[in-house]
Amino acid sequence: MTVVSDGDRPRSEAVCGKLIVFEGVEGSGKTTQMTRLCQWLDVALQTQPELHRLKTVIATREPGGTPLGTEMRQVLLYPTAQEPMAARAELLLYAADRAQHVETLLKPQLAQGHLIVCDRFTDSTVAYQGYGRGLDLDLINQLNAIATSGLDSDLTLWLDLEAEVGLARAQRRSHADRMEQNILAFHQRVQQGFAALAAAHPHRIVRIDARQAEERVAASIQQVVQQHLTRWYAPSGAIAPNL
Amino acid sequence: MTVVSDGDRPRSEAVCGKLIVFEGVEGSGKTTQMTRLCQWLDVALQTQPELHRLKTVIATREPGGTPLGTEMRQVLLYPTAQEPMAARAELLLYAADRAQHVETLLKPQLAQGHLIVCDRFTDSTVAYQGYGRGLDLDLINQLNAIATSGLDSDLTLWLDLEAEVGLARAQRRSHADRMEQNILAFHQRVQQGFAALAAAHPHRIVRIDARQAEERVAASIQQVVQQHLTRWYAPSGAIAPNL
Repeated sequence: MTVVSDGDRPRSEAVCGKLIVFEGVEGSGKTTQMTRLCQWLDVALQTQPELHRLKTVIATREPGGTPLGTEMRQVLLYPTAQEPMAARAELLLYAADRAQHVETLLKPQLAQGHLIVCDRFTDSTVAYQGYGRGLDLDLINQLNAIATSGLDSDLTLWLDLEAEVGLARAQRRSHADRMEQNILAFHQRVQQGFAALAAAHPHRIVRIDARQAEERVAASIQQVVQQHLTRWYAPSGAIAPNL
Repeated sequence: MTVVSDGDRPRSEAVCGKLIVFEGVEGSGKTTQMTRLCQWLDVALQTQPELHRLKTVIATREPGGTPLGTEMRQVLLYPTAQEPMAARAELLLYAADRAQHVETLLKPQLAQGHLIVCDRFTDSTVAYQGYGRGLDLDLINQLNAIATSGLDSDLTLWLDLEAEVGLARAQRRSHADRMEQNILAFHQRVQQGFAALAAAHPHRIVRIDARQAEERVAASIQQVVQQHLTRWYAPSGAIAPNL
């Protein structure tokens, strides 16, 4: 690569992006909080000098973060067929969606310096298909590794909420998708899965108390993300927090 | 299980079915020959005493052998999205379709004594995604093992035809699917893949010369299948060939 001075360097070569993931049970507030965080990040990128070289914030999700993934999401969550989906088929279909997402969106956009905020990633597969459905965790880790080609989140925000509270919230929405239609015991096992993951990966997964009011949850998230932005992009502590 | 006399034994408990798979490049005549073989097998089950306890012949295919698989086939072969499909996403999507097929159709129907004839199975994944796309063969074998939970074909009929001849035949059909749209060199690598598989698994894969006239190909297939039926269901040689 040609060495250029800072002034000549195109913005895209200056810095790598980061992947921030939201995880949690149905109704834990991921969508609302993701929207708020993305708005906050848009401002942070404009106002914090050390973040100027980052590119725009991208909000995405799994399943369905790509055009082809949208078609796979339809099969996963709103299938036309009336037959039950085999647990392994479901696992592999989520992995297919993830492989497309990683290959065509996450990796190239991170390399170009975008901050990416993603609704669900590999931990959801461990929690839902592993703890929820009871599929072998080694098999799931193996498939996650294949689907991501090794890409991991830089920060995972786990919105911690009891499954019964979340499910009651989710059920007030218009119509439940195929995952939401599972019984409460399933969602309780999913919640246990997230708790186990958070305990096993304390450096990557940060627990957010999602029982708090929306404003308080948003403030907690901003604080955690600000700390991480400082660590990633201004390790000397040059960024003035903008909370 | 209660021991019952032959006369009392329900037909479904009497015997296990077998999985016969057709493989080959586009345009090698699989669909035509599958239809002919199924018709021939229907007669064989009625006329050969040792086969009387088998249940009806089931014709199926991959991708798309189940209602949910039909939705996955649509994404695989006729996607609405205009973006290219990542090679790993394609591989995982085929595996998802296979897992659903094995779990909800192949295993239960074989256990009930059906003969199953299937258009494509694991070897196609090795040939198309491995040899054709250049994906790692160990990865493919790993995913085939996950998707099939160990189910293998009892007999694979490889319709051996040069890729250029097959592709020319396939292109005379109404519209090419996503796999047929690949360049000739891709299909030549696929054909090499089938040849390598046949060399590696001589006991499972039988090569059929698909350059012959349709009638001759059908006769070759019937002869091979008759030999296998005799081996499976009348090892003493009691079945009178019905060619």
